[in-house]
Amino acid sequence: MIKTSVITEWKNGMHFSSIIDGHQLNIDAHKDFGGEDLGPSPKKLLLSGLAGCTGMDVVSILKKMKLNLTFFNIIVNADLTEEHPKFYKNIEIVYQFKKTDNLSDEKVKRAIELSQEQYCGVAHMFRQFATITHNIEYLD
Amino acid sequence: MIKTSVITEWKNGMHFSSIIDGHQLNIDAHKDFGGEDLGPSPKKLLLSGLAGCTGMDVVSILKKMKLNLTFFNIIVNADLTEEHPKFYKNIEIVYQFKKTDNLSDEKVKRAIELSQEQYCGVAHMFRQFATITHNIEYLD
Repeated sequence: MIKTSVITEWKNGMHFSSIIDGHQLNIDAHKDFGGEDLGPSPKKLLLSGLAGCTGMDVVSILKKMKLNLTFFNIIVNADLTEEHPKFYKNIEIVYQFKKTDNLSDEKVKRAIELSQEQYCGVAHMFRQFATITHNIEYLD
Repeated sequence: MIKTSVITEWKNGMHFSSIIDGHQLNIDAHKDFGGEDLGPSPKKLLLSGLAGCTGMDVVSILKKMKLNLTFFNIIVNADLTEEHPKFYKNIEIVYQFKKTDNLSDEKVKRAIELSQEQYCGVAHMFRQFATITHNIEYLD
């Protein structure tokens, strides 16, 4: 097992400061939920974690496949349940590329499958509580 | 269901920029993993999400219980598996308070139990893939 620790300090109200390997991150609730909106809400950090995890896999795999990217966006659309404890039940990941990068659609699909099925630990964790689907878009 | 979207843009190398409700967050891999360490690694964001989620619950519940806090830290210790897909298997959450705040230990325990068992959606999600334990510490 690999050991990791994250320390999160309460500042005031709903505002917390989290330290991840020396990187400081403000976390807060939205004003509608009693916070001051000084940072992202904690639950949504999971969606950025999912995007970053699979995004890094895809960038690495496409690089090994000798494909050159100039643009790559990951949109995570999530459905949160309405009753406590609220959790993400359905997740759609949209991988966006540029048409002008002339990527092989077959290789892009393969890179994303490798991430979703073998490499991305965050997607693996999400699959224990959510249904994950994905789409690939090539923008003009 | 409550709809949420997070957009994450690839910058270069392993560096991504994620936008959560207007808050910009850099995500990067550590230099040992081909990144430039310009932000936290994606997987560890989940640990800050867990800390913030249960932390906000505990602060809210203690406030309703009329307990005054001057200090509150949450340490998340996590064991990550070593094979792909790497996931968090064991999580220990340490809730730290100050002795000088003279909190009722019974009320603190109750607030944490309410968060862990009823309110914290992130803890609920984590329990689908990890074992979560927690401890309470009162510091001098």
